[in-house]
Amino acid sequence: MKSIGFLGLGIMGKAMAVNLIKAGFNVTVWNRNPAKTDELVALGAAHGSTPKAVAEQCDLTFAMVSDPEAALAICQGKEGVAAGIGEGRGYIDMSTVDDTTSQAIARAITQAGGRFLEAPVSGTKKPAEDGTLIILAAGDESLYQDALPAFEVMGKMSPYLGEVGQGANMKLVVNMMMGGMLSIFSEGLSLGLKAGLTGDQILDVVGAGAMANPMFAGKGAMLLNENYTTSFPLKHMQKDMRLAVALGDKLDQPMPTAAIANEAFKQALKAGFGDEDIAAIYKTVK
Amino acid sequence: MKSIGFLGLGIMGKAMAVNLIKAGFNVTVWNRNPAKTDELVALGAAHGSTPKAVAEQCDLTFAMVSDPEAALAICQGKEGVAAGIGEGRGYIDMSTVDDTTSQAIARAITQAGGRFLEAPVSGTKKPAEDGTLIILAAGDESLYQDALPAFEVMGKMSPYLGEVGQGANMKLVVNMMMGGMLSIFSEGLSLGLKAGLTGDQILDVVGAGAMANPMFAGKGAMLLNENYTTSFPLKHMQKDMRLAVALGDKLDQPMPTAAIANEAFKQALKAGFGDEDIAAIYKTVK
Amino acid sequence: MKSIGFLGLGIMGKAMAVNLIKAGFNVTVWNRNPAKTDELVALGAAHGSTPKAVAEQCDLTFAMVSDPEAALAICQGKEGVAAGIGEGRGYIDMSTVDDTTSQAIARAITQAGGRFLEAPVSGTKKPAEDGTLIILAAGDESLYQDALPAFEVMGKMSPYLGEVGQGANMKLVVNMMMGGMLSIFSEGLSLGLKAGLTGDQILDVVGAGAMANPMFAGKGAMLLNENYTTSFPLKHMQKDMRLAVALGDKLDQPMPTAAIANEAFKQALKAGFGDEDIAAIYKTVK
Amino acid sequence: MKSIGFLGLGIMGKAMAVNLIKAGFNVTVWNRNPAKTDELVALGAAHGSTPKAVAEQCDLTFAMVSDPEAALAICQGKEGVAAGIGEGRGYIDMSTVDDTTSQAIARAITQAGGRFLEAPVSGTKKPAEDGTLIILAAGDESLYQDALPAFEVMGKMSPYLGEVGQGANMKLVVNMMMGGMLSIFSEGLSLGLKAGLTGDQILDVVGAGAMANPMFAGKGAMLLNENYTTSFPLKHMQKDMRLAVALGDKLDQPMPTAAIANEAFKQALKAGFGDEDIAAIYKTVK
Repeated sequence: MKSIGFLGLGIMGKAMAVNLIKAGFNVTVWNRNPAKTDELVALGAAHGSTPKAVAEQCDLTFAMVSDPEAALAICQGKEGVAAGIGEGRGYIDMSTVDDTTSQAIARAITQAGGRFLEAPVSGTKKPAEDGTLIILAAGDESLYQDALPAFEVMGKMSPYLGEVGQGANMKLVVNMMMGGMLSIFSEGLSLGLKAGLTGDQILDVVGAGAMANPMFAGKGAMLLNENYTTSFPLKHMQKDMRLAVALGDKLDQPMPTAAIANEAFKQALKAGFGDEDIAAIYKTVK
Repeated sequence: MKSIGFLGLGIMGKAMAVNLIKAGFNVTVWNRNPAKTDELVALGAAHGSTPKAVAEQCDLTFAMVSDPEAALAICQGKEGVAAGIGEGRGYIDMSTVDDTTSQAIARAITQAGGRFLEAPVSGTKKPAEDGTLIILAAGDESLYQDALPAFEVMGKMSPYLGEVGQGANMKLVVNMMMGGMLSIFSEGLSLGLKAGLTGDQILDVVGAGAMANPMFAGKGAMLLNENYTTSFPLKHMQKDMRLAVALGDKLDQPMPTAAIANEAFKQALKAGFGDEDIAAIYKTVK
Repeated sequence: MKSIGFLGLGIMGKAMAVNLIKAGFNVTVWNRNPAKTDELVALGAAHGSTPKAVAEQCDLTFAMVSDPEAALAICQGKEGVAAGIGEGRGYIDMSTVDDTTSQAIARAITQAGGRFLEAPVSGTKKPAEDGTLIILAAGDESLYQDALPAFEVMGKMSPYLGEVGQGANMKLVVNMMMGGMLSIFSEGLSLGLKAGLTGDQILDVVGAGAMANPMFAGKGAMLLNENYTTSFPLKHMQKDMRLAVALGDKLDQPMPTAAIANEAFKQALKAGFGDEDIAAIYKTVK
Repeated sequence: MKSIGFLGLGIMGKAMAVNLIKAGFNVTVWNRNPAKTDELVALGAAHGSTPKAVAEQCDLTFAMVSDPEAALAICQGKEGVAAGIGEGRGYIDMSTVDDTTSQAIARAITQAGGRFLEAPVSGTKKPAEDGTLIILAAGDESLYQDALPAFEVMGKMSPYLGEVGQGANMKLVVNMMMGGMLSIFSEGLSLGLKAGLTGDQILDVVGAGAMANPMFAGKGAMLLNENYTTSFPLKHMQKDMRLAVALGDKLDQPMPTAAIANEAFKQALKAGFGDEDIAAIYKTVK
């Protein structure tokens, strides 16, 4: 069994690392704020002093940090992953980063002799805890094979999608579908309510047919209760829809429905709902 | 147990009547082309000579015909349902008709002393055979209660939605959501394929997440195989989306995503795909 | 010179009739509220007691009333135009009516032996006074020739557009272009202002280029002054855009830009700006 | 009178430089391919050996090159403008470049002690020859004052729009309006033709009303003749619409009409019409 490093112990990263420890992996953890490592050390993890140190000691180092800047920072510099990774070891970045950042990290790691895989995830806190994330892996295929046992602990599926960039592309495809669905769902619900149907009737009928899906069930209940507790911030969805439309632009793929759903999310952003859940798009639609 | 009449033995109506007979109801059938009644008589049904005769003999008469003109024709005239229904008996029209036709039928029946329920269904041949239709009932509530045992044989759910017209409204709400979903799905699939992902990868990832739904699974497989065998004709979907947008117009409900998905279906119609399955929208999107 | 009847002396009709009298035509006027005829009688017009009486006495009878109901009412009934028109005389309805009403009036007149022309106008009070309306004539071509001298007094152009219905179609085409232009103009102005340009700079640059047009100049100045004094009510524009999109539906012509501009006008309607000028769309865009 | 340098003698630049020479300015010209300078030298211009040499000799140096790469190249490097400009002299880049390039050029010039103005133009070959361009100037205000006499020779208007970037922003605002107008115009024309009106009727009526503008007249005639001779390439318009939508994204300004018109231009691009005139959008709309 490969030794595993884990960098970044936020809400997501901590849950994922805990699952790896419980599954019996030999895990070394590091976090910018070292206090957060205590709980994992208590569960049996080792403590790494720097990203470089972790990458030097472990066969495979995973990272899950909050934004592109942090992802780049832990990789570069004197104490960064690239400085420690050396020949043949592997680095798997599971953070959600833009294409440019992902390419920069890939270059830094491969130039240092390491192997690189991007592996952004679909899913939030609960699936991270339950080990049911969807892991979108792309990059070095031999590293993918080595990482698979760990992926299987953290997620319910982890397809290999090709060269670096394809993980991010898949995430855009998935999220733009999600945004478009939420937009048409909000319009349909608004229409039905104005026509005199009740929200429960609509959700029941939709939930019984070919369109039935967990998102409509979950977000639908939230809308009817005017509950917009954030599990996926609306501003992040709008950013992904914008990037998806831009990718369509680059690939000569017209996408009128996505473009209009993007404008609907912009309307919600302009109305001040950016930090609420994606379900808050309903507030500007209704 | 109420005696039941059933008018219209097309693909849908026959399957529904068979289920009623098998469930032990006392059923009298009528069809414009009487040859089609033989099979049901063999299963134990009685044969009615005219819609009027059926409505006179049965406590509850159901109809399932192919279009508004047929629905109106079997109701009106010397040999029509209204001529036979009399005081207190019930007529349940399960055909899909427009609002004007539904109101005209409701008037004819109630003026003749009968009770009326519109009950359009969501679902095609297979759910009709399996008794898993979604039945959208609206109109006379006492009649709804009387019809419920029969509904429970024919469908998996049959909510009571209020006054005449609400069954049709629910169907528009459901179908516009379906159309919008199919439009964003087609765009997302096209984008992913152009970005170099494979169709199977995309369907797998979508099928594992919060958006997973039977329609994406079913239509997705069709798209990847360029199979557009009609189960729901594209031209009917476009008609429903147009009516939904028109309903939004009437109710002051802006619906940009639905309006644009409607234009996408019009594009497919213009390209000559009106008689193919709704999935053929993909051919003009990709 | 043909004798002329004129029915309907509202803001538009009065200005048009005054121009005909001043041009030397022999004019007989009628209005539902007869007090309004005094001013025209003072200018030299005769007073007609009913629409029927006017149609009996005059070679050509023009009408300009406020809505389809009024247009139908003055035509039908014992004292209506159809009762008086007789063989060979002509009726020209310049009111803006829907297609069904126009066809009903055409039938009533031609069945009574008269000739019929629909001639809705583009332009409001000022062009009516100045005799610079755009008159969209369609129907009986010999009547068009007879009416031309009067059209030339009332308008600056009056093309013959074909059979009854084409006048109304042209009006929809023109108004949907106008609505779309206003929508993109409002978005462009909003974008420029948010980017830090001034409204005057934007209007100046737009006004100097290939897009320069009287509407942008006029409405642009209104927007910058937050002045939405009604010259064309927003709710009427939204109605015309809806009808244009519906016509596109009927003719298999996808029109995504028009469909989305229609939704933008619906948004303004929903916000309560229906009775303000079409320029008020800017209030929901900005 | 200030001495003037002019860099870049393509279709646009040559016409502009000729106008400056004819107006009596003392002009030094440079072009990457020096053969193109002969004609201007024959008219009285001096020949500069490099961009650096021109910038050293002239009070004001103008540039008009074809793309951002060329604009950056003539500015940077050992023989570039920045190497020669020195204290107090001015550089006016009239090329159309993106924001990042414009900022990079501004930095290079000001760090070298020079003054900088961006001044992209609206208008193509004919206005360049006629001296009727619209010049969108932004940057150093004292330089703007110095350049004004030359602007007045090259253009019919040249407002000062503020800091570097505002010239480019104005161009996006203007072009997105133009694109939206062309999209709704194409839809309206298509609708009218399908309804049985003729193209001439539609252009006449539109040309007589409040929407009348040179673009509809010019492009309208092109559409009816199926003539798509390029004066403004469709792919450049789509790029500008994309950038305008992206600017709206940055400034939280929803722009559904612009977003949909952008998708319509993408559809035309996908159909292979990118190098034809912007009027070719009609081919995918009709």
